[in-house]
Amino acid sequence: MTITSGTVRSRTDLCTAIENELTGLIGKRTSAATAYGPDFAHLWTLAGKNVLGGKFVRPLLLMETYDSLQQGNPRQRETAISIAAAIELLHYAFLLHDDVIDGDLVRRGHPNLIGSLLAEAGELPRPDGALHWAQTGGILMGDMLLAATHQAFARADLQHQLRLRLLDLLEHTINETVAGEQLDVGLGDGIVTPELETILMMCGYKTATYTFELPLRAAAALAGADFAVETALATAGKHLGLAFQLQDDLLSTFGDPRRHGKDPFSDLREGKQTAIIAHARSTSSWADIEPFFGLPELSGAEAHHVRRQLTDCGAEGFVQSLISEQMEAFNHLLTSPDSQVPPGARNVLLDLAGQLEGRQS
Amino acid sequence: MTITSGTVRSRTDLCTAIENELTGLIGKRTSAATAYGPDFAHLWTLAGKNVLGGKFVRPLLLMETYDSLQQGNPRQRETAISIAAAIELLHYAFLLHDDVIDGDLVRRGHPNLIGSLLAEAGELPRPDGALHWAQTGGILMGDMLLAATHQAFARADLQHQLRLRLLDLLEHTINETVAGEQLDVGLGDGIVTPELETILMMCGYKTATYTFELPLRAAAALAGADFAVETALATAGKHLGLAFQLQDDLLSTFGDPRRHGKDPFSDLREGKQTAIIAHARSTSSWADIEPFFGLPELSGAEAHHVRRQLTDCGAEGFVQSLISEQMEAFNHLLTSPDSQVPPGARNVLLDLAGQLEGRQS
Repeated sequence: MTITSGTVRSRTDLCTAIENELTGLIGKRTSAATAYGPDFAHLWTLAGKNVLGGKFVRPLLLMETYDSLQQGNPRQRETAISIAAAIELLHYAFLLHDDVIDGDLVRRGHPNLIGSLLAEAGELPRPDGALHWAQTGGILMGDMLLAATHQAFARADLQHQLRLRLLDLLEHTINETVAGEQLDVGLGDGIVTPELETILMMCGYKTATYTFELPLRAAAALAGADFAVETALATAGKHLGLAFQLQDDLLSTFGDPRRHGKDPFSDLREGKQTAIIAHARSTSSWADIEPFFGLPELSGAEAHHVRRQLTDCGAEGFVQSLISEQMEAFNHLLTSPDSQVPPGARNVLLDLAGQLEGRQS
Repeated sequence: MTITSGTVRSRTDLCTAIENELTGLIGKRTSAATAYGPDFAHLWTLAGKNVLGGKFVRPLLLMETYDSLQQGNPRQRETAISIAAAIELLHYAFLLHDDVIDGDLVRRGHPNLIGSLLAEAGELPRPDGALHWAQTGGILMGDMLLAATHQAFARADLQHQLRLRLLDLLEHTINETVAGEQLDVGLGDGIVTPELETILMMCGYKTATYTFELPLRAAAALAGADFAVETALATAGKHLGLAFQLQDDLLSTFGDPRRHGKDPFSDLREGKQTAIIAHARSTSSWADIEPFFGLPELSGAEAHHVRRQLTDCGAEGFVQSLISEQMEAFNHLLTSPDSQVPPGARNVLLDLAGQLEGRQS
């Protein structure tokens, strides 16, 4: 898929509009925070840097879908941009609490907010003091971003019924995401049985709902599209979201770490319950993989051995076939003769799906 | 202060109304949560039990103040009850994240949500798995309660301007509370210098704002009271809130643990930076107190010794005098000839202040 220069220009404009909205939202809060001292304002400064350094996947999806469904009415479009920006704050709130829960200090090769606070804290009286201070910052900043997201939805300059509809979407999204996060942690801690069905459900809930379903449904609702259109977009988004998530798992295990920036064997060392592992567990190779799975001190050579086993036992291929199934369902929804997805929105989704192919990070 | 039987009757009615509202809010969410499996729904069940077992201090303050300021208009009163209930959810969200941050498993002598999850988890593959699972539940349930609070404010059946006013109050409250929590942790972790002024600011931000200022301002706004009335109520609430918080510190250190249900020396063992300690640090007794302060393994005899020193050096008396100052300012605001507080609201606040005297827990 090639991107026409027209698409590139409008995407640059959209990025600027989203960036301006986020800069405003964050700047206002950073100013308000300075009244409570430098440590508090610093949370907003760090979060702002991270949020504004993002790729705006979710707000762009919302706005491109919105623009494709609705021409005109510039007033409502401003509100759409504020909702799109709020969804980026929600994304970052989830990332932060996920990082606290996972004990992560790095994201995409750079210190996350917690890692930055830890590095700045230096030596403190108690040995665990700096980490405690940094993780507290992660919890509290996540709370602030969750609050800021709700404030943007609650204040949206819309008819009351439409605002209630968006609030319903937000509530549903948070339910699913939190349920997915809990399932993910339950799988990791050995509370939840790692069945394939559960793992796939977790993938959908934890990331796909807020990354794809929420922006697509919000775009449709804001553009006044029929509910059948909204439903078709959301279903397509769910398939695409699951495909993305499964590909993330493949990249983490089989991808090139110089490109995705993560520890190449962290999923194996952490014992992360992925669809890859669920399939491997059903094969005779599992007896050879299991002793290494979840070993924090796994060596590079051992990890390479496990990775080869995961390919040889068919787990890599199995997950690739799951991705293909999701993409077939996605394409069918968009291109079948009775598709409810209008052509403009179809192009937005196909463009996004194009980014999935040949993805390295 | 005696409570007339009329007051008792209306308070019982109010408690029932608040309880019904909370039961509805929590029940609806517990039902929705069951779609995501038993572990997720269980979070709501546990939280519901804890919320409904509370004393409803904040919602009662809001409703009694509201009723004193406004007679009639039953429709707005229903909205006031929903805001009052939402403030109780906010309180519990703060408690949960505070418990995660402090590593607490017990509140008022009973397992908190985290303690319950830990006890139920039993043996898990990794030694720290159960605690990780339980604390994750605390973070996620805090997020859900924070979201539920915002949803109630955002959906309030009010004129748009008034809803925005309440959303402003919520935003301001969350800012101050989170700033207070961060200051408290910074004091404990040795990031923030433990000066008396900072400690008093922290006390006000962390608890008084959401416990007193938010319910009082919300009541005034919902009842359509003048801004001068709202400001006077909020100022009185701040004084009362600080007095309550300082008395909490006195009770924790000098009170009877059979009544307040806490470890009687936990503040000393944790090295909690209170106004008591800030004053002691400025006296010649500090050299004798410091070696014991913040010792996790502090013995009962050592703790009794420190406690006696804190009395003898004048720290106990100093904090009592701070409480008296706050109560004098509070009483002056309520009873001076040019007081902006209407008689009905004054009685509500005096009644609440009466509970401060002779308080044991």
